[in-house]
Amino acid sequence: MSPLDGDAALRARAARVVPGGMWGHLDTRRLPAGYPQFFTRAEGGHIWDANGLRYVDLMCSWGPIVLGHHNPVVDAAVARQTALGDCLNGPAPVMVELCEALVERVAHADWAMLQKNGGDATTACVTIARAATGRNTVLIAQGSYHGALPWCTPVPAGTTAEDRANQGRFLYNDLASLQAAADAAGGDLAAVIITGFRHDNVVDQEMPSLAFAQGARALCDRLGAALIIDDVRAGFRLHRGCSWERLGVQPDLSAWSKAIANGHPLAAVLGRDSLREAAAKVFITGSFWCGAVPMAAALATLGEMDRIGLPDYLEELGSYLRAGMANLAQRHGVGLRQSGPVAMPLWLFDDDADFAKGGTFCRAALEHGAYLHPKHNMFLNAAHTQFDIDAVLTAAEAGFRAVGTA
Amino acid sequence: MSPLDGDAALRARAARVVPGGMWGHLDTRRLPAGYPQFFTRAEGGHIWDANGLRYVDLMCSWGPIVLGHHNPVVDAAVARQTALGDCLNGPAPVMVELCEALVERVAHADWAMLQKNGGDATTACVTIARAATGRNTVLIAQGSYHGALPWCTPVPAGTTAEDRANQGRFLYNDLASLQAAADAAGGDLAAVIITGFRHDNVVDQEMPSLAFAQGARALCDRLGAALIIDDVRAGFRLHRGCSWERLGVQPDLSAWSKAIANGHPLAAVLGRDSLREAAAKVFITGSFWCGAVPMAAALATLGEMDRIGLPDYLEELGSYLRAGMANLAQRHGVGLRQSGPVAMPLWLFDDDADFAKGGTFCRAALEHGAYLHPKHNMFLNAAHTQFDIDAVLTAAEAGFRAVGTA
Repeated sequence: MSPLDGDAALRARAARVVPGGMWGHLDTRRLPAGYPQFFTRAEGGHIWDANGLRYVDLMCSWGPIVLGHHNPVVDAAVARQTALGDCLNGPAPVMVELCEALVERVAHADWAMLQKNGGDATTACVTIARAATGRNTVLIAQGSYHGALPWCTPVPAGTTAEDRANQGRFLYNDLASLQAAADAAGGDLAAVIITGFRHDNVVDQEMPSLAFAQGARALCDRLGAALIIDDVRAGFRLHRGCSWERLGVQPDLSAWSKAIANGHPLAAVLGRDSLREAAAKVFITGSFWCGAVPMAAALATLGEMDRIGLPDYLEELGSYLRAGMANLAQRHGVGLRQSGPVAMPLWLFDDDADFAKGGTFCRAALEHGAYLHPKHNMFLNAAHTQFDIDAVLTAAEAGFRAVGTA
Repeated sequence: MSPLDGDAALRARAARVVPGGMWGHLDTRRLPAGYPQFFTRAEGGHIWDANGLRYVDLMCSWGPIVLGHHNPVVDAAVARQTALGDCLNGPAPVMVELCEALVERVAHADWAMLQKNGGDATTACVTIARAATGRNTVLIAQGSYHGALPWCTPVPAGTTAEDRANQGRFLYNDLASLQAAADAAGGDLAAVIITGFRHDNVVDQEMPSLAFAQGARALCDRLGAALIIDDVRAGFRLHRGCSWERLGVQPDLSAWSKAIANGHPLAAVLGRDSLREAAAKVFITGSFWCGAVPMAAALATLGEMDRIGLPDYLEELGSYLRAGMANLAQRHGVGLRQSGPVAMPLWLFDDDADFAKGGTFCRAALEHGAYLHPKHNMFLNAAHTQFDIDAVLTAAEAGFRAVGTA
């Protein structure tokens, strides 16, 4: 490796031509010092940074990598479709195959539409719900992330009050607060949008309670509003279909992206027949939304998920990781809270309001070859093995030691 | 070809699993009957539909294909980056190389940010301008297309009045109307957004006049507002840099997509140093925005554009096409208006308010192997040859005959 290719040299060059050196959630200014900004390659469950260091990767590109990098079945499907064509004057036949596969797979889905960003999909769900109901108000859980468009970005810089008009707030898993927000909306309630589980940044994750899910469904039915599940982050990692299928509760619309095509840019809206006419009426589109290669990648990804038995495999691996971490925390006498589904763990330390412990822990783990996150949920992928998890636990042990002596 | 693979069979299957059978601008319900909905492959300047028919393609996937499908240099760059990695925990070094290349290339650009959709880029420009000025109002030319997000979609179904709040309208190339809109905005003018040239649907295209461009620049300077050029559609086809560089007028921000990566999903915002701090402050991001493969494709595409001398080549080819079409129209005694830059022609017929002539013309041309559009501007690409243009003219001759006998 030439020093000119290293992370510091790339950062210096980026600082000149990119505002702040990097944008959005991938900006390492959001991480403790010591994290690399640039990555040069990836394979299975491992990534290499621009200094040539290898990590067991528990971020999985913040969700998209679900089978592991360079999954051979996905790569072969990509190569086949690439040889034919990608961005054409209209869709390729693979669009029909993929939409059929999604409709077959997800219980509430009668139809599908495809986009690029998760935010394209959540925005489309809201737009379709408004078109269907002729109403405007959308209820959003306080702190939930639905993308970074002006109506939903967590940082209001450059947005207007009107961008966030026609919205009400409720608390996740708090049916009384949802009812109160619906009361406030009066006859104008178009939709309620809820993430597959509560995976807000920097607070303990929560699974949806059965009572909350059933209550949200009943409320939407009673008021003629659409129930939207934003499964962009969780989709396919917890269940073969929609995350709320585990609870037996079906939404009217759902938003998908992240893991759908193992890293290829794709998003989807799935919906019920009752929303089909509205979905055909809205005009949402993009220059690359008919791109056939990401669709071929998605079709192969769904097939591989089934062949592997993905949610079960990730659950097994995640349970092993969770137990190992609990043991380590206990042994080191450190209060660690592991929350959320085992396949998408979040680790927060007790008495750590400024995330100093989390930062110390993650920096030490990074130095020992595990790429973790101190504030955001992490992700397992199907290329991770028990050996990889053992390597994470070894790195975590270094993290616990660092926290103990800090 | 099996009948099951044909366009009609695919449409029937799509009708079950996609609302209306297709979404957005690629929906053939927007075209005369007889157009194929599905495409199976592409090569250079040609596409094949799902019935196995080949066309000289003057839509170029509605803009993204600028070098031709399967350009070998772009394909090689894509293969190299794919072997390393695409969607990682942060950007790959190619992000820096691409942003440096864009900043070197485009006169007003001091920095770059990358996204997926053209609409991501136009929305980001507006957000950055608002963050920089602390004001809200954005002036938009009546009829201009800036994407299909709720603030700008041409079809209001499912959007709210608030989505279009904080906007004023003016007429393209009409400085008095721009001044009046700015007056109405009072002290709240954040930005003026203008397409590289006037390429609104279904009306004759117009190049920006020098007086209008200079006047818009002076107005923004006087009022402390950002001048945004939306070069999503025209970018790189008319000039090596921003389309308004031909006029010697520099914007503060510009939005790019379409041709930037020869069909790979990518968009960009370029801006001046005066907007850098605001650009670093807004939170705009996406799961696939660090994807390295489209960036590698873009870097190769820019290089190939220069090697070919792209704008000159397209200008030469387009001039040949325009002269040929003018000859044919005159010979057949048909009033045809060819408008806009020769590399992005729009063809409208006189006395054709319902586009019946245009539809008849395009259907006949389609049957003779040329894929044209009756209402939207078309695109040339660098893989088109004089032979291809001759083939288009032969197909157009069939179109003129059909119009004459209709």
